[in-house]
Amino acid sequence: MEISVIAIGDELLIGQVVDTNSGTIARELNPDGWTIKSVRIIADNAGEIRKAVDMAMSETDVVITTGGLGPTKDDITKQALANYFGGEMIYDKDVEKNVLEVVRKRGLKINPLTAAQAYVPSSCKVIQNRVGTAPIMWFEKNGKVLVAMPGVPFEMEEMLHSEVFPLLKRHFAKDEFVEHRTFIVAGYSESVLAGKLEIFEREIPKGIHLAYLPKPGIIRLRLTGISRDRDWLAEQMRQLTVRLESVVGENIICEEDKMPAEILGDILRRQGLTVATAESCTGGNIAHEITAVAGCSDYYKGSVVSYANEVKIRQLGVDASVLERDGAVSEPVVRQMAEGVASLLQTDCAVATSGIAGPGGGTPDKPVGTVWIAATAGGRTVSRLYRFAGNRQRVINHATMIAEIMLIGLLSGREQLC
Amino acid sequence: MEISVIAIGDELLIGQVVDTNSGTIARELNPDGWTIKSVRIIADNAGEIRKAVDMAMSETDVVITTGGLGPTKDDITKQALANYFGGEMIYDKDVEKNVLEVVRKRGLKINPLTAAQAYVPSSCKVIQNRVGTAPIMWFEKNGKVLVAMPGVPFEMEEMLHSEVFPLLKRHFAKDEFVEHRTFIVAGYSESVLAGKLEIFEREIPKGIHLAYLPKPGIIRLRLTGISRDRDWLAEQMRQLTVRLESVVGENIICEEDKMPAEILGDILRRQGLTVATAESCTGGNIAHEITAVAGCSDYYKGSVVSYANEVKIRQLGVDASVLERDGAVSEPVVRQMAEGVASLLQTDCAVATSGIAGPGGGTPDKPVGTVWIAATAGGRTVSRLYRFAGNRQRVINHATMIAEIMLIGLLSGREQLC
Repeated sequence: MEISVIAIGDELLIGQVVDTNSGTIARELNPDGWTIKSVRIIADNAGEIRKAVDMAMSETDVVITTGGLGPTKDDITKQALANYFGGEMIYDKDVEKNVLEVVRKRGLKINPLTAAQAYVPSSCKVIQNRVGTAPIMWFEKNGKVLVAMPGVPFEMEEMLHSEVFPLLKRHFAKDEFVEHRTFIVAGYSESVLAGKLEIFEREIPKGIHLAYLPKPGIIRLRLTGISRDRDWLAEQMRQLTVRLESVVGENIICEEDKMPAEILGDILRRQGLTVATAESCTGGNIAHEITAVAGCSDYYKGSVVSYANEVKIRQLGVDASVLERDGAVSEPVVRQMAEGVASLLQTDCAVATSGIAGPGGGTPDKPVGTVWIAATAGGRTVSRLYRFAGNRQRVINHATMIAEIMLIGLLSGREQLC
Repeated sequence: MEISVIAIGDELLIGQVVDTNSGTIARELNPDGWTIKSVRIIADNAGEIRKAVDMAMSETDVVITTGGLGPTKDDITKQALANYFGGEMIYDKDVEKNVLEVVRKRGLKINPLTAAQAYVPSSCKVIQNRVGTAPIMWFEKNGKVLVAMPGVPFEMEEMLHSEVFPLLKRHFAKDEFVEHRTFIVAGYSESVLAGKLEIFEREIPKGIHLAYLPKPGIIRLRLTGISRDRDWLAEQMRQLTVRLESVVGENIICEEDKMPAEILGDILRRQGLTVATAESCTGGNIAHEITAVAGCSDYYKGSVVSYANEVKIRQLGVDASVLERDGAVSEPVVRQMAEGVASLLQTDCAVATSGIAGPGGGTPDKPVGTVWIAATAGGRTVSRLYRFAGNRQRVINHATMIAEIMLIGLLSGREQLC
């Protein structure tokens, strides 16, 4: 099933807010074989909305709009949709009840603008938005469906996952089964991985598709199969998984769609280990990624961001004479940082980074992008030198990812990732 | 001037990569009075590209495409543009030279795919891409311009800023002057600020526009004026600035378009002070934002992410009995954390956070979103309790921003921000 997405909002066109909703929709729908044909980002403008809806409805059977439903501007989108699909604006008591409930839970008071959310076009079915005040509206025309969803990312994501997509799947149910498997591969570039998988890819049967989804440091491989024959599909997916594992299994760090910080967390929890980080050039970003995972307090104790050399010496116990001799961006220093923070915070393992994120600070010997990374666990410390490309933010992100992968490698006995 | 943006790439439609380029384009162009009318995100598909280009060229005088130019897929976009604008594919020696230079700088070897970048449609003028291998192509038709740019964000941003936008401005030069001023306002919600500025807004003369650009914790106010009369414009902008300052000046933390981490950095550098952070619920994100600013080593020494209580006690010197009595998410603990890290890392000031980011860990007394924040400087410590809405990531981001603003308030004598 192909769908169109229309993201509505002036704020998306002035660079104030990035549209992340269309990516969220893709990630939710793709595993079931649904794909986004195109995304349109338009202003809160009745003419633009009408034109975009008209084109999208002509191109695909399903259209999802996001945004344009805030209490101060809902008239435009709602009214434009009422004009397009017919009917008039009516006051919906159930929506009012839901809005009051949501407002109450947030500890706020209702105001006239919020109360106006209860007006909806008579031509739509309402799906109550459990996590926000803008009602979700389901319209149908000539066998096609348009769903108008809120633009606030967490509301959109929650309601798409729990209600809207299940309803869409039921509405357009076909006698087809969809299966998908995701493999997180580390330690290969995309072109090297593609070379290793050349024969594997040639033998993938029709109806099953392999997608490469690279990020700095990892590649997500996703097998998606669609068939009317459930047993055939299950057997094929099983065989392909076995074959894939036999070719690149050593570099598959997870067979679920998880990011390295989450994979690392799973391993630490399973092995009953605790972790700390000592960060110089990543400046707390590894800690930030580890703590972005809910429940991380089971295994994460803390970090020392040792930007200044005196913090490396005093807190982490880095040897001042080694710092003097080899510089902060060096193998002995990054190893002492990792071992130092594990000892200081009494954790079983740790990772450390020291490098030059730029734009300043580079030298001919150690240009911008030079980063030493170390990981320590069970009395063993590994370390490696990297040269990352790109600007400051990219160097920080890449080093963060590689540090997490290095510890995953060390804890799971995958030497090639250390 | 209105422009259309077309973002090309399968990866943008499967949720693998978020299109940040259109936001970058908006932020670069808006201050000069140029606006984006619509953004289309489409697949690497010749038919889709042709359709989108045709529509965009009918709607605006300038079209910018991004992406679809990687060495493995450039044939599709380039060929589609050659078909649309006429001409044939030719081998361009200057592009070859540029590609070789870029590849050499990256320390890589040329391969046949990279060499193919030198083929360009004969109907375009080439703008050499100094920072990547995909050439930038400038097409003209019926007085309208389409510029095809690479999709890699840092290449797009660098070349747009340094060459493409200056060329576009010269090409469409009008006898108009554009002036803009940005004010970062903290401590007000959007609706409260709008109330305070009601009279101010009514008195803004024609040709000058005020935009509200809110983020969690701050609102960027941007005045943009366009006029043929340079002196009138300068005088109006000056008067409006004075009037704006007289109404909300106390809450304007910066009159440039900077984020709080950068504003804080400027203040610290100016006052010759150093800073550290002690983070529990923000998990290193304040450190990450401070160190995302180039040159932060002038004032930033380091951080302790004290996720576990034992780290709060042992490293930061939080009183174990107070922790026991009041819990980690409490005023005395967050104050001791701020003071403790400043003393530990010997800095002049510090911020600290302790809260419940969720989804777990909430209680009726301290629900998810409860965060205590403290800032300390010059022997004085301030602290305040917040209840942030939204999911884990949102709570972390909001708390991070407020912590930075609190220290800005403390250092600049703005009590209402403390």
